[in-house]
Amino acid sequence: VIESQKMLGIVGGMGPRAAAYFVTRLTELTPAIADQQHIPYVLYGDPRIPDRSLAWSGVGDAPTAWIIHAIRELEAIGATLICIPCNTSHYWFGEFRRHCSVPLLNIVDATLDSLDDAGIAEGKVAVLGTAATMRGGLYKSALMSRGYEVLLPESPYDEACLCAIAEVKSGHLTEARYSFTNCLDCVVRAGARAVLLACTELPLLVEGHLEIPVISSVDALARAAVVQMLSPPDGFPITFVDNPNEQIAAVQPKRREDA
Amino acid sequence: VIESQKMLGIVGGMGPRAAAYFVTRLTELTPAIADQQHIPYVLYGDPRIPDRSLAWSGVGDAPTAWIIHAIRELEAIGATLICIPCNTSHYWFGEFRRHCSVPLLNIVDATLDSLDDAGIAEGKVAVLGTAATMRGGLYKSALMSRGYEVLLPESPYDEACLCAIAEVKSGHLTEARYSFTNCLDCVVRAGARAVLLACTELPLLVEGHLEIPVISSVDALARAAVVQMLSPPDGFPITFVDNPNEQIAAVQPKRREDA
Repeated sequence: VIESQKMLGIVGGMGPRAAAYFVTRLTELTPAIADQQHIPYVLYGDPRIPDRSLAWSGVGDAPTAWIIHAIRELEAIGATLICIPCNTSHYWFGEFRRHCSVPLLNIVDATLDSLDDAGIAEGKVAVLGTAATMRGGLYKSALMSRGYEVLLPESPYDEACLCAIAEVKSGHLTEARYSFTNCLDCVVRAGARAVLLACTELPLLVEGHLEIPVISSVDALARAAVVQMLSPPDGFPITFVDNPNEQIAAVQPKRREDA
Repeated sequence: VIESQKMLGIVGGMGPRAAAYFVTRLTELTPAIADQQHIPYVLYGDPRIPDRSLAWSGVGDAPTAWIIHAIRELEAIGATLICIPCNTSHYWFGEFRRHCSVPLLNIVDATLDSLDDAGIAEGKVAVLGTAATMRGGLYKSALMSRGYEVLLPESPYDEACLCAIAEVKSGHLTEARYSFTNCLDCVVRAGARAVLLACTELPLLVEGHLEIPVISSVDALARAAVVQMLSPPDGFPITFVDNPNEQIAAVQPKRREDA
């Protein structure tokens, strides 16, 4: 009874709150006014995947075999596009791509595209995330190759960022917001023109409006997925317009000259 | 590399916001302080499933073949327990159970168990949901067989409830909250001792504290799933203790005599 159609595969569980928030934002950012206009997806939520930060530090099991297993299960169930809403796991992205027979979205590319969409083309950009993401080359090299300067929170605010992520994972969101706000203030004071939330736990902590653009890697990946899933091959690109009241998005045909 | 283990299968898409909210609550209600302590699940989010209310009214395609397809996909990927966070779809529950080879949770049973857990053992209980759920026998017969009186919102507040559900589906949450609050006020005035939110879109609209217990079918199903997934066969039952600050749950061993 089910006609062949596009289906999004999502590797979840990294962490569980981030994955639930990703599908919430995917739904909110989809320009739909009825259930049947939404994107079919399968979320493979496997929280048993070993800790990505520990593996990056060389003290824990590698998550790669688990993530590749999830990718294969998603392919088997019919996913035509796959995404992994976890930044740290993208250290092994090349390996995932080699084992994936359908297109695989890259959260770093999606986040940097969103930075560009926000009108920030140069200058100091702060990166907040796990130790691997802040200290490793994942975002650093991608930002530098696009001509940005990379700004990291100085000590002890880098530790506050790691605390915020751990507190989201353990369900202590009030404490996490406190740690995160200190960290945000630090990079704003240091002259950041924009902040990248380069860990999918961090966007859960954003409250109110900041004086500089805050780019959520969750929203960036969700938008990239919506565009790929809903845009006809020769159609107009989708423009996301946040409704401040409802956070829903609208489809606004955009002329090619403006794109 | 993946050891055989319990996995929860979730039939989503009915509607997409309700499914995302279900996995959010499942995560929040799981007593876990690290990613790896959470429940492995696969969420098969198929928003193409035909409208359940239209089918119940006899004017739309039946959703059954689609839901049975989703159940079979979840079984094939390894689900050891399946749940369907959509109340109206439970009109066809018998058919789903016949086609499902693993245990299938029933949202009506879970919601009535939560009503009992809230200490409401008799009296008038209001049912808010789709027309099918309010006017059909699904909750009515289950409540009456347990000795409760069924209270439905009177006109035009029953229509306000249907509007609230439609508004959630179309992403207009502010308008939905307005319609829903009117409807809640109506059943409180009519003397309800408790309110069942018998549609998985409605718990998204609850704000603040009401003077009578409000039983969310989303939380009820999520708790039933957590208990089944985490309780060892001969272990203590899990007691959910809402932390007013964080909405997380704790495991509190409960003596069998108190259960």
